Amino acid sequence: MNFPSAADIQAAHERIKPYVHRTPVLTSQTLNELSGAEIFIKPENLQKIGAFKARGAMNAVLSLDEPARRKGVVAHSSGNHAQGVAYACKTLGIPAYIVMPENSSAVKIDAVRAYGAQVYFCINTAEERQKKADEIMEATGAAFVHPFNDFAVIAGQATAAKELIEDTPEKLDFLVCPVGGGGLLSGTALAAHYFSPHTHVIAGEPEGAADAILSFQNEKIMKAPYVDTIADGLLTTLGDKTFAIIRDYVTDIVTVTDEDIVQTMKLVWERMKLVVEPSGVVGLAAVLKYKGNFTGKRVGVIFTGGNVDLKKLPF
Amino acid sequence: MNFPSAADIQAAHERIKPYVHRTPVLTSQTLNELSGAEIFIKPENLQKIGAFKARGAMNAVLSLDEPARRKGVVAHSSGNHAQGVAYACKTLGIPAYIVMPENSSAVKIDAVRAYGAQVYFCINTAEERQKKADEIMEATGAAFVHPFNDFAVIAGQATAAKELIEDTPEKLDFLVCPVGGGGLLSGTALAAHYFSPHTHVIAGEPEGAADAILSFQNEKIMKAPYVDTIADGLLTTLGDKTFAIIRDYVTDIVTVTDEDIVQTMKLVWERMKLVVEPSGVVGLAAVLKYKGNFTGKRVGVIFTGGNVDLKKLPF
Repeated sequence: MNFPSAADIQAAHERIKPYVHRTPVLTSQTLNELSGAEIFIKPENLQKIGAFKARGAMNAVLSLDEPARRKGVVAHSSGNHAQGVAYACKTLGIPAYIVMPENSSAVKIDAVRAYGAQVYFCINTAEERQKKADEIMEATGAAFVHPFNDFAVIAGQATAAKELIEDTPEKLDFLVCPVGGGGLLSGTALAAHYFSPHTHVIAGEPEGAADAILSFQNEKIMKAPYVDTIADGLLTTLGDKTFAIIRDYVTDIVTVTDEDIVQTMKLVWERMKLVVEPSGVVGLAAVLKYKGNFTGKRVGVIFTGGNVDLKKLPF
Repeated sequence: MNFPSAADIQAAHERIKPYVHRTPVLTSQTLNELSGAEIFIKPENLQKIGAFKARGAMNAVLSLDEPARRKGVVAHSSGNHAQGVAYACKTLGIPAYIVMPENSSAVKIDAVRAYGAQVYFCINTAEERQKKADEIMEATGAAFVHPFNDFAVIAGQATAAKELIEDTPEKLDFLVCPVGGGGLLSGTALAAHYFSPHTHVIAGEPEGAADAILSFQNEKIMKAPYVDTIADGLLTTLGDKTFAIIRDYVTDIVTVTDEDIVQTMKLVWERMKLVVEPSGVVGLAAVLKYKGNFTGKRVGVIFTGGNVDLKKLPF
């Protein structure tokens, strides 16, 4: 497999720059005291659509040629990828067809429709989602953009870590982010490999969706033993592309409980004044839980998103 | 009166830089679309202690000479100024004596104590607060730092607008912030006067604490006709120093209702993913309410703080 190269990631960055925020790097004395490390936060909850997914979706859609763009884009997602693709298509003035599970929350459906996308519903299984997406592609000729198992998406997600590396004054010892399907993690691992080769990349994963750690340890794609976590953005299993990159370039994957996640989320709201979703803080939860591994180190941490229903806070 | 000079504000900025965040400048397509203006947000909710008050308190305490510092600092405040002074004193390793109203919330008392300050309680009247502060000064020799009517505090608060001016790519047509006692507003007005003289400074004030607009229109310090607003950081009346600067350098003051404030707060949480307190968004609420005055203009807006009880959200 030809993974995205340094040049691919640099090109992705140039391509998406006019359409995404260069989110700041934030520091917090409280986090440093709690962890014993020096922490640099990349708050992608402040990104367009409230999540890093705008980066990958924007790069994938911008990578289509003009005739392909005119036919539009299909995606299936109940979460931030749907908004990312809808945002990218709205920005370029092309059609977006989004397949969502029929039990998606009204808040999420409204958010996708607010970007002008056409929403299609299906039964919430991987097979039904893909079947519906295939039907739409057949009927419209639109291009399919996978939420993570796509090198253009991965190169786009890599730009978050690239910016964090560029905007942190000294070398980072670690980069830490959550893992779901592995789009952000594989992109982060490639960015570190190319642009900060001595930086170790660590992923946090919910105990209740622990497929990536199993796959990583067993060197083959495996399913989670059970799926039950508040981190609803991290339920998916790795794809062959994300797995291959993670296997080669990630140092370690560790798990956290839902209690760790909720405590960390509350800490971030109270002390950093940021609205983050449960999935968004799983990287930081991992650093705080295993802080002995990070003592005295410089640790970059990506907050992935902030799309949460303010009426249903877990604290 | 000798208002702080450009050199005073520059010196304040250099003095406090090692101890405060240079908060980023954030933009939002949603805000631009809603307002018809180009808005640049300075999110001081991301500042140390969660509010711009860290700037003025830090400058005032750093401006004391060594013998004075050793005797410590007295302040009276139920809110962010208390935390600002406590933070400044903790940072420099000197005593902080904070007088708080006896009906202050446990959350606020705990926050001040967490910075190592000694808390004293008094009946919640201006006279009792000052009497208690005077007693502590008498007993300890500590220096008094007023929450707003102090040129060192005003010069410190001015650094937020100075940074916003420096970090916005082109000239701002307007700078907008809330007004309570007027420390931030007078500092913002001086910063604009010295560093961006064509920028107009506008203040938002709650209808339920409308003393500044009355004072501004009648050219003398007046009390609010009634005090009843969710913006609990903006209840105080202008001081002679803040009033004099505001009278000379502010373009206009406009009022917003509590409903405007709560709607704006919800918008900022949902769309900008920032935890802001009701007082913190009064500037933005004013821009959105009177958007006809800002059409097509470049508008800098300061979010002042994010210290809010997550269990008592008004939406």
